[in-house]
Amino acid sequence: MRYVTLSTDADPTPRLGVVHGDQVADVRSLPVAPGTDPWPSALLDFIRQGPAAWRRLADRLARELPRGDGTWHRADEIRWHAPIPRVPKNIFCLGLNYASHAMESAQARGREPKIPQIPVFFTKAPTTVSGPFDEIPWDRGVTQQVDWEAELGVIIGASGRNIPRARAREHVFGYTAVNDLTARDLQQQHLQWFKGKSLDGFCPMGPLVVTADEFGDPQAKQIALRVNGQVKQLANTKDMIFGVDAIIEVLSRGLTLEPGDVISTGTPEGVGIGRTPPEFLQDGDVVETEIEGIGTMRNCIVAVS
Amino acid sequence: MRYVTLSTDADPTPRLGVVHGDQVADVRSLPVAPGTDPWPSALLDFIRQGPAAWRRLADRLARELPRGDGTWHRADEIRWHAPIPRVPKNIFCLGLNYASHAMESAQARGREPKIPQIPVFFTKAPTTVSGPFDEIPWDRGVTQQVDWEAELGVIIGASGRNIPRARAREHVFGYTAVNDLTARDLQQQHLQWFKGKSLDGFCPMGPLVVTADEFGDPQAKQIALRVNGQVKQLANTKDMIFGVDAIIEVLSRGLTLEPGDVISTGTPEGVGIGRTPPEFLQDGDVVETEIEGIGTMRNCIVAVS
Repeated sequence: MRYVTLSTDADPTPRLGVVHGDQVADVRSLPVAPGTDPWPSALLDFIRQGPAAWRRLADRLARELPRGDGTWHRADEIRWHAPIPRVPKNIFCLGLNYASHAMESAQARGREPKIPQIPVFFTKAPTTVSGPFDEIPWDRGVTQQVDWEAELGVIIGASGRNIPRARAREHVFGYTAVNDLTARDLQQQHLQWFKGKSLDGFCPMGPLVVTADEFGDPQAKQIALRVNGQVKQLANTKDMIFGVDAIIEVLSRGLTLEPGDVISTGTPEGVGIGRTPPEFLQDGDVVETEIEGIGTMRNCIVAVS
Repeated sequence: MRYVTLSTDADPTPRLGVVHGDQVADVRSLPVAPGTDPWPSALLDFIRQGPAAWRRLADRLARELPRGDGTWHRADEIRWHAPIPRVPKNIFCLGLNYASHAMESAQARGREPKIPQIPVFFTKAPTTVSGPFDEIPWDRGVTQQVDWEAELGVIIGASGRNIPRARAREHVFGYTAVNDLTARDLQQQHLQWFKGKSLDGFCPMGPLVVTADEFGDPQAKQIALRVNGQVKQLANTKDMIFGVDAIIEVLSRGLTLEPGDVISTGTPEGVGIGRTPPEFLQDGDVVETEIEGIGTMRNCIVAVS
């Protein structure tokens, strides 16, 4: 299944949708059989309802064909929001999870290159989340160095703690794309990375969530990022140092993962600070973040001061 | 005002209370005048309702005297929960915000002592929050080095971004005590601090929230921590490198603070890893965290594996 959070001109409330080709089902508008629960109106609530609710909706939609009533919209007519516009806690993020990126990061800072032996975790505040086609606000009074980081995002579906690697996939609801935008100057100055990772709007997410069964192997997907059409990052998720299963195992040690949690799995080489000379995003730049099997986000940088 | 989140044997639902001496008003049980809104049932909701709602409840309680009906409980008869049992995002935390602690931390790691010129921010997951008298679960399979950190916590009352220092206090709802429990081994191994700071139950908070007007100057409060009755930390919040106003100014640059956000302002010297030899918490240890004007939390460490 391919889930989106959509709104329309006629109704600006963000709500759950399901993509079929170039059509999107407005789940809230599906007829409800007498005596049964209403359909979920938000993806986060739907994820929290668990596997029985997921099956019920999938079964219902298998019997539904796109048709010209209020239940279906053309994909190019909806507004696309982040799949989970308000994440229930900070986004868990991996740092230095592709060897080539760990090398370029060390070189950019004049440090000896080191490949992490243990995953490096940090977080982004929920206020960073923005839609897959939203503008990215750039406050020049706050940062001079806005950089990009294309990443595969994992959406947790089932709660768990101390999850063994072999059972990690049972806890995954699906996958999305994330651009882990970073204020490099703040990331450096504040010593810990959190502040430079957490400016408002600095986490475009989407355009949709593909369920784990439909997505297939998360360690065999092409990941790409372009700025104004120029390819800056082009890699494959097979090159992660810690794959999705290992990440879930280590992150969940003594720490409960919950439905709707988002884990962004780190970025490959090709970020702006790793280039000679370094490149940072400028007013009007258009950033495209693409993951095979999920789709492409397109975000324009807009100076707001 | 002194707000708590309480439950009782008769009703285990956590809910808003107000402390008067050794009595606690169960806000939900206050009579509601015809045609007016019900009283708030959770502190987080109440904070989000804003100043008009805060005044309405304060005015109502000024006319209320403790009496022997269901509205009032003896303070020693309630269960005390964290004031905000489920924080709306990760807790913002300061690192190395007392010079003496920055020195002991550097020495413990064999590094040159440095006083931060810019605040160091990291976060703790919402799943860390526990009550002021709850047991702290210690999974020996996850960490061997559980350390303490007594801290003053700030609760945000009014949303804001790019808040100037001179107006920072207008955004504060109140203050609480926090024990920023830390798995030192994980903090080191994972490079970024987040994982070592975010084990389940590793953030006792409370015992209550004192509103800003009643608390007075947040930079003139004694802060203390004891393990099994022995004083380990004893300091004054006047010794913070970055005071509450500066923290709010810098943290809010390009990052929106929201009602109910919690900022933990860093710990003074005297943590376990700074001692010779280092000390870590053991099964059965009792940790008391005390802040002048707020009160004392008492948490027992309990090995769970």
